[in-house]
Amino acid sequence: MILHGYFRSSAAWRVRIALNLKGLEAEMRFHHLGKGEQFQPDYLALNPQGLLPSLELDDGTVLTQSLAICEYLDERHPDPPLLPADPLARARVRAFVQAIACDIHPVQNLRVLKALKAAGQSEDETRAWARRVIEQGFDALEAIIAGSAGPFVFGERPGLADVFLVPQMGNARRFAAQMRWPRLERADATCATLPAFADARPDRQPDAEQ
Amino acid sequence: MILHGYFRSSAAWRVRIALNLKGLEAEMRFHHLGKGEQFQPDYLALNPQGLLPSLELDDGTVLTQSLAICEYLDERHPDPPLLPADPLARARVRAFVQAIACDIHPVQNLRVLKALKAAGQSEDETRAWARRVIEQGFDALEAIIAGSAGPFVFGERPGLADVFLVPQMGNARRFAAQMRWPRLERADATCATLPAFADARPDRQPDAEQ
Repeated sequence: MILHGYFRSSAAWRVRIALNLKGLEAEMRFHHLGKGEQFQPDYLALNPQGLLPSLELDDGTVLTQSLAICEYLDERHPDPPLLPADPLARARVRAFVQAIACDIHPVQNLRVLKALKAAGQSEDETRAWARRVIEQGFDALEAIIAGSAGPFVFGERPGLADVFLVPQMGNARRFAAQMRWPRLERADATCATLPAFADARPDRQPDAEQ
Repeated sequence: MILHGYFRSSAAWRVRIALNLKGLEAEMRFHHLGKGEQFQPDYLALNPQGLLPSLELDDGTVLTQSLAICEYLDERHPDPPLLPADPLARARVRAFVQAIACDIHPVQNLRVLKALKAAGQSEDETRAWARRVIEQGFDALEAIIAGSAGPFVFGERPGLADVFLVPQMGNARRFAAQMRWPRLERADATCATLPAFADARPDRQPDAEQ
């Protein structure tokens, strides 16, 4: 398999964690988002959205969208599971994950920040926007998981919710969000002790910049 | 079951279609997004994100996030299926759906439009932004499904991809996008002939405004 990513892409980061949790190896190819390498014709032929990540399977099939890729890996390689077996529990994990993937990450991401700058906002103002989106999103997620046991987001094993939380926590730190989520921070800290998560960190990727 | 929605919310629209396709009944409760009713304490107690839709099950359990709700309905009521059985085919459908749910809808939605206006953009400029996001997103989706047979997005039965396409097509029309997607438009038109889709339209909801 070949994972097309970029050290700083939090969507690619999710898939790196999922591959590590499953004990799966993939060749890493890097596309520099700042230089627009994701819009080169060769890459667009793989992924017409021009987004990272994409996962090329050994037969050449290309999968896109980090969540779809993680669920595919979970269905094809069910052990250890990323999702619980019970439909209601699965719905809770998916809702947590989609709150990040739909309502936090894309709204605080480069494309919207560029649009706000083009509309006249300063660098400080766009950073404040990203920070607010993350803080409001995490406030809701902290409330949503208030009743669940730790040390991970849902219970005693790392799962899909942790796979999505950790990269978004990375973004929270990058935008200097006010850390005020004891449950989320505890899950993040627990994950940091596991090699599957530690090895996936942006600063440990070969294409990392200082 | 109780579906908390709003006639114009395209995320609630998705769940209305899914319920209809499954032949499931739900009591409809409406929350006016323009008046901020989704931020009233009673609703925030159900859904701390203050977003629509939420689905209250008969035992009082609350599910959030339209995609998580649709997958829950599909797991609990598998006939007719919204997702194919094969993991690779499921990954393709999920990637299509997530391109809408993560990369188009939230980026063209009210929250970002309000931020652009606050940054100094005119109504026309924010509408142009929404239109461009939808057009670029649908350009990619049209390319992604180029090889798949119709008349629905993936094959001869309506599925999760259609559930997500139709409301986003509604947004495309609302923002006067340049319709240039023969495959997507064909699937949308095919869906329009089915009561499950027609009955879910915003203008057929009791809270619809002109």
